[in-house]
Amino acid sequence: LPTVLRSHAPAHHFAIISDSNVAPLYALPLSDRLVRDGLRSDVFIFEAGEPNKTRASWASLTDAMLAAGIGRDGCVIAVGGGVTTDLAGFVAATFMRGISLVLVPTSLLAMIDASIGGKTGVDSPAGKNLVGAFHFPRFVAVDPDVLRTLPDADYRAGLAEAVKHGAIADASYMNWLVANAVAVLRRDVGFVDTLILRSIEIKAALVSRDEREAGIRAALNFGHTIGHAIERLSNFTVPHGHAVAIGMVVEARLGEAEGVTLPGTASTLQRALEALGLPVALPPGLDPLRLAQATGSDKKVRSNLVRYALVARLGEIAGTEGAWTHAVATDRVVATLGA
Amino acid sequence: LPTVLRSHAPAHHFAIISDSNVAPLYALPLSDRLVRDGLRSDVFIFEAGEPNKTRASWASLTDAMLAAGIGRDGCVIAVGGGVTTDLAGFVAATFMRGISLVLVPTSLLAMIDASIGGKTGVDSPAGKNLVGAFHFPRFVAVDPDVLRTLPDADYRAGLAEAVKHGAIADASYMNWLVANAVAVLRRDVGFVDTLILRSIEIKAALVSRDEREAGIRAALNFGHTIGHAIERLSNFTVPHGHAVAIGMVVEARLGEAEGVTLPGTASTLQRALEALGLPVALPPGLDPLRLAQATGSDKKVRSNLVRYALVARLGEIAGTEGAWTHAVATDRVVATLGA
Repeated sequence: LPTVLRSHAPAHHFAIISDSNVAPLYALPLSDRLVRDGLRSDVFIFEAGEPNKTRASWASLTDAMLAAGIGRDGCVIAVGGGVTTDLAGFVAATFMRGISLVLVPTSLLAMIDASIGGKTGVDSPAGKNLVGAFHFPRFVAVDPDVLRTLPDADYRAGLAEAVKHGAIADASYMNWLVANAVAVLRRDVGFVDTLILRSIEIKAALVSRDEREAGIRAALNFGHTIGHAIERLSNFTVPHGHAVAIGMVVEARLGEAEGVTLPGTASTLQRALEALGLPVALPPGLDPLRLAQATGSDKKVRSNLVRYALVARLGEIAGTEGAWTHAVATDRVVATLGA
Repeated sequence: LPTVLRSHAPAHHFAIISDSNVAPLYALPLSDRLVRDGLRSDVFIFEAGEPNKTRASWASLTDAMLAAGIGRDGCVIAVGGGVTTDLAGFVAATFMRGISLVLVPTSLLAMIDASIGGKTGVDSPAGKNLVGAFHFPRFVAVDPDVLRTLPDADYRAGLAEAVKHGAIADASYMNWLVANAVAVLRRDVGFVDTLILRSIEIKAALVSRDEREAGIRAALNFGHTIGHAIERLSNFTVPHGHAVAIGMVVEARLGEAEGVTLPGTASTLQRALEALGLPVALPPGLDPLRLAQATGSDKKVRSNLVRYALVARLGEIAGTEGAWTHAVATDRVVATLGA
């Protein structure tokens, strides 16, 4: 990393941002390595967990960096999962109106999703990622080796996004994931490398067609409108990837009910997710009406109608240029959730 | 405004952000006008004053807009002085990763300075504007008529930036300001219009050469390194424009001491500022060493040396491409301040 940093993100002072779980594993050793290499580096740690992806954490990290004398010629290195890359990215985006950023994702989800596409942000009481900015990193350093320390539930949560990539853009990739579910779940090196590369390819292709999410990039929200509402109503006890897995099944059923999605898609998707050890049913006790209403504060709302990214069939997003999302009436959502 | 908004910043919902002084004068009437015209509009008010240009105000405004159901297709209209355009601009920059923004400056300073160039941000305990983002407005609506309600001290504070524009880019403009000081101070319509247009031309030309302030845009910081430190040490009791006026004289003297600035420049500049009713001496009781140290947390710091934008002579910034700022040793700053 020191060599790549010198050539691709030169800075007077590196601010490594990491959470309390990942810092001792990777951030502190990385900082020591940079210092041994003659670079100036400090580590800034926040308490791990999605509930800490807040404006308060953002303000504390910013103030600590200011107190450490980091200036406009500083560079933020985010070392961690999606919470860290989102939060540290937002710190970099707003520090003295934007300083350079490098992402070192340590979770599968962050490697194939959160790190790709320039989105940064924090949660607020009204919902996830409602406060944020676009801020692209100088580069993303993906080292599959670090997945060795990733808890199993987190690894599987990342697989949900891989399934999503297949569902919206490449049916054969989704079939490959299912056919090799055992090797993928065992994290066999060749399979993990293939998965990471193919998922990044799909996401990067969509993002580079539409950096500011004015159009087709919305496809990446498949499963996320319901998914975010599940996360929020569960007070984030349901992990993001699990919520997205459930959300994809619900949204595929919604699409079928709307006549947008090929019948049978939801069932096939459900079996794929189950093969990869992911949940597909709503957590018990979640009220369909409250869940439908909770989608209302999502960013995908336009003109007061909640708009969904739906698939036409597996491997193909539904829609055309200028109309990649679909307004769905609340009673249809409630009925689908109830079923 | 309704017509221009429809063509240049179409939105489902307008969020007019204004402070407690300006809201009753201009924001509430504007909102009524938009509603009468069939547009959806709400007014969001924060307590007037630079001490309220904070992350806390930013968070409250954001949460109020979220509670009002404003989405990505919303548009922020900032109505007020520089505090309002900076703060409301930062709300727009970070609301759902950036929504459209329109600026309606109501102070001279905001018209010729804060509204031009895409800078948004808030203050933090460590200094002014250390937290922020670049976010350009769809358009800026400047109506010189609103200056009728601007208090005299605020009007004169705006003149300091006009003098700066002359000092860094156009000596004849600065001479015009001094020669017509009486008419300018009386706010005679023709003179005010000329001043606003010429200042916006100068600032816009510099900004469009260097949107992200990587180079020559730094010229606009002339007077601001010392100026910001004066503001902060006075707990913002010295208005921005007054602090900049004093800062320009100090920085001209610094430039003379460094051999960068033509001897006599500081005295001429001082007389010009005095003719326009602006302060040119440090507030009593301000310790030179503390003031010099207070410049250390400014964004213009690079590699731990405070860097100043200096003039070669009146009407001409000192420097060349790639080197528009000058590192000045702290003891030189202390000596100049002491004198």
